[in-house]
Amino acid sequence: MKHLKLYITVAALVLSSTVFAQSTKVKEDFKPSDVNQPGRAFPQVNSQGCVRAQISAPEANMVQLDIGGVKYKMVKDENGVWTGESAPQDEGFHYYQLNIDGASVPDPGTKYFYGAGRWGSGIEIPAHDQEFYALKDVPHGSVGEHLYFSDITQRWRRYFVYTPPGYEEDTDKRYPVLYLQHGSFEDETGWSAQGKASFILDNLIADGKALPMIIVMDNGYAYKPKTATSGSGRPVSAFEEVMINEIIPMIDSKFRTLADREHRAIAGLSMGANQTMRIIMNNLDTFSNYGGFSGTSNYPSSDEIDPATFLGGQFNDGKALNKQIKVFWLGLGSKEPNPFPGSVGAFRKMLEKQGIKYVYYESPETAHEWLTWRRSLHQYAQLLFKD
Amino acid sequence: MKHLKLYITVAALVLSSTVFAQSTKVKEDFKPSDVNQPGRAFPQVNSQGCVRAQISAPEANMVQLDIGGVKYKMVKDENGVWTGESAPQDEGFHYYQLNIDGASVPDPGTKYFYGAGRWGSGIEIPAHDQEFYALKDVPHGSVGEHLYFSDITQRWRRYFVYTPPGYEEDTDKRYPVLYLQHGSFEDETGWSAQGKASFILDNLIADGKALPMIIVMDNGYAYKPKTATSGSGRPVSAFEEVMINEIIPMIDSKFRTLADREHRAIAGLSMGANQTMRIIMNNLDTFSNYGGFSGTSNYPSSDEIDPATFLGGQFNDGKALNKQIKVFWLGLGSKEPNPFPGSVGAFRKMLEKQGIKYVYYESPETAHEWLTWRRSLHQYAQLLFKD
Repeated sequence: MKHLKLYITVAALVLSSTVFAQSTKVKEDFKPSDVNQPGRAFPQVNSQGCVRAQISAPEANMVQLDIGGVKYKMVKDENGVWTGESAPQDEGFHYYQLNIDGASVPDPGTKYFYGAGRWGSGIEIPAHDQEFYALKDVPHGSVGEHLYFSDITQRWRRYFVYTPPGYEEDTDKRYPVLYLQHGSFEDETGWSAQGKASFILDNLIADGKALPMIIVMDNGYAYKPKTATSGSGRPVSAFEEVMINEIIPMIDSKFRTLADREHRAIAGLSMGANQTMRIIMNNLDTFSNYGGFSGTSNYPSSDEIDPATFLGGQFNDGKALNKQIKVFWLGLGSKEPNPFPGSVGAFRKMLEKQGIKYVYYESPETAHEWLTWRRSLHQYAQLLFKD
Repeated sequence: MKHLKLYITVAALVLSSTVFAQSTKVKEDFKPSDVNQPGRAFPQVNSQGCVRAQISAPEANMVQLDIGGVKYKMVKDENGVWTGESAPQDEGFHYYQLNIDGASVPDPGTKYFYGAGRWGSGIEIPAHDQEFYALKDVPHGSVGEHLYFSDITQRWRRYFVYTPPGYEEDTDKRYPVLYLQHGSFEDETGWSAQGKASFILDNLIADGKALPMIIVMDNGYAYKPKTATSGSGRPVSAFEEVMINEIIPMIDSKFRTLADREHRAIAGLSMGANQTMRIIMNNLDTFSNYGGFSGTSNYPSSDEIDPATFLGGQFNDGKALNKQIKVFWLGLGSKEPNPFPGSVGAFRKMLEKQGIKYVYYESPETAHEWLTWRRSLHQYAQLLFKD
C-alpha cells in the first residue's frame, strides 16, 4: 500500500514535469539495471527504456537525472528520497550522472565505467538482440591486465588482453590477434567492460562463428615527453609508433601469437577507427584486416575525398589494396549524429570510386554509442582470419 | 593572488569548524591523491595526512567530507565551489565519500574501489614505507579476470589471478599458489586494486625476497541456492566447499601449478582470515601455509580458548601441527580497534599454550585497514615455499 501511494505521488509529479513527454505513459515494469552495484534496487529501467533513478538527499533543493544530454527533474518524497524518470533511451549502454544542487556526481547505485573523460555511472537498456553479448554457459576466455614501461612516451602504460577459452590449457596452440581500440575520452578498460568484448567473442567462438583469437586493448592516447604540436596546437600522437615498435613486438614475445600480417587485424571505434585506419594504411606489412566502427580518417569532413592526396595517396591503387587487405569493414549506427554519417559516407564514396572492396554494416536504431560498437565487433569478428 | 585569497578564506573557515582540531595548523603542501581520476586536481593530501576535497555545488546548503567515520564541513566560495579538509588520517588507503545536502555520493575526483559494501571513492595517504608497494621499473606479472559457473552455488563467480613475471614466456615452469581472500563487505577485486598485491609481489620477486608464485583471489561470499541458516539466522557459507571442490581443481587444471599441499598457501584479511583458518584446519592435506591478517576464527570473542573444543579440537595436537604446517602467520595493526586485539590475543595465547610455532607481525601505527594488509602480505609472502 505504501508502495502504491509512492507510485501515485511519483506518477503525479512526473506528469507535472516540463521535460518528460506528456503523451508517454510510463509503464510500471521497472527492474534494476544489469550494471547496478550488488544489492542496489536503483537505478531501474522499464520496457520502454525509461530510466528511473532514486537517491536520498533530504536537504537538497533540486536533484536531476542527467542522461543523454537531458536533465530530468526528480521529486522528493516525505522521507527526503528523490525519484525521477527519463524519457525512453536507446537500447544499449549509456553513461549518465546525477545532479544534486548543482553538483554532478556518480549515482551511488551503479558500477562505474570510464567514458566521457571520467569514471562515472552507466546503465544498460536491455537490447532486443542482447543475447549475443550475454553471459552464457559456454567456455569463457579471460581478460588480463598488463603494465609496461614505454620508452617512446617515457610512461607506464597498460593494456588488457582477451585470451580465448583453452588458451591456458593448450600451451602449444598459437592464435591470430585483433588490436582493438577505444574512442575519444575513453580508455583501455572500455572494450572489456561496457564493450562486452570478451562475452561477444566467447559466444561467437562457442557457436563456431568466429575463430579463437587474442584481443589486445591498449590506450590510444600516447605522447612523447616533449611533444610537438600540430598546426592546431594539439599534441602530435605517438600512438602509431607505440603500436608498431612497442606493443606488437611485446605481444608477439609474451603471447602465443601467429606473428604475421595475415593473422593480425586492427579495429577501433570513433577516434580509434580514425587512428587504426592510419596505422594499417601506413603498415600494410603488419596488418591485413581493418575495422572502422563509427569513424574514418577523413573525420570530421564530409567533403569529397581525393584519393591522390588523402592519407598520402594510400587509397590510390584500389587493385593493389584489394589484394593486400583481406577484410576492410565499416560500421555505423542508423541514428548517429553529424558529422559521422557525412564523413563515413564520403569515405565510402571514395572506396567505391577506387573499386576497393569493403563490408558496410548499419546498426539499427543506435547512435554513437556502445551498442553500435558491440554489434560492430560481433559482425566484424566473424569475418576475421578465415582464409 | 586569487589562489592566496581562496586559501585565506578556506583557512579561516576551517578554523571555525568544530570538528577539526584547533591546535593543528594545516600545511599548504597538498598534492593530488595517487588514486585520482586522470587529470583531476582534487582530492589532495598534505604531508600531515590531511585530505582536502573540492566540488562544485552552487545550489547546495551543506557539503561534507565523510572520512574515517567523521564528517568534516566544507565551505563554499563565491563561485559555488566547496572546499574542506579532514584531520590527519593514518598512512595508507582509506574509503571515503562526500555528503551533499544529505546525499552520500562518491567524490567525482577519484577512482572507485569496492569496500564497505559499495563501489566508492578511495584516497591514498602516502606511507613512509610505500616503496614496497610502488610501481617500479621491475618485471611485472599480470592480473587476469576469470569467470566460472559454480555448480555448488548455481551462480557465475569470478576470480582474479596474479601470474608472476615470466609466466607467459616460460611455458614449462610450474609455480606454487597462494589463495588470498578479502574481508567482509569487500570482494575479489580488493587485493589487486587497493591491496596492491601484484606490485608487492613484483617488487619482492625482483629483489629475490619472494619466490615467483601464482595468487588466486576469489570471492568469499558463497551460498547454496536453498541456503540453510545458522542459529543466528545468517546463511551458512559454502565457501569452503567452493574452494576445495571447485576453485582448487580448476586452478590446478587451468594454470601451471605445483599441485600439492607443500606448494599451497592460504591467507585472508579480517573475515577472510577467519574463513581461511577454518579451511586450512579442515584441509591440512590441501594446504601447508596459513596467513591471518587482522583476524582469527575465535572472532569476535576475546575469551580464553579451549583447544579441546575450538574448531573441533583441531589445535589440540600442537606437535603434529608443527610438522604439518610450514608457516603459521598472524598479523595485526598496532591501532586496531576492539575486538581485534582481544580475539587475536586470545588466539595467540592458545597457540603458545599448545606449543604451536607461529610468526606474529605488528603493523606500526595502522588500524583495521589496507596498509596493515599490504604490509602483512609483504611480510608473509617472503616466508612462503622456501623449503
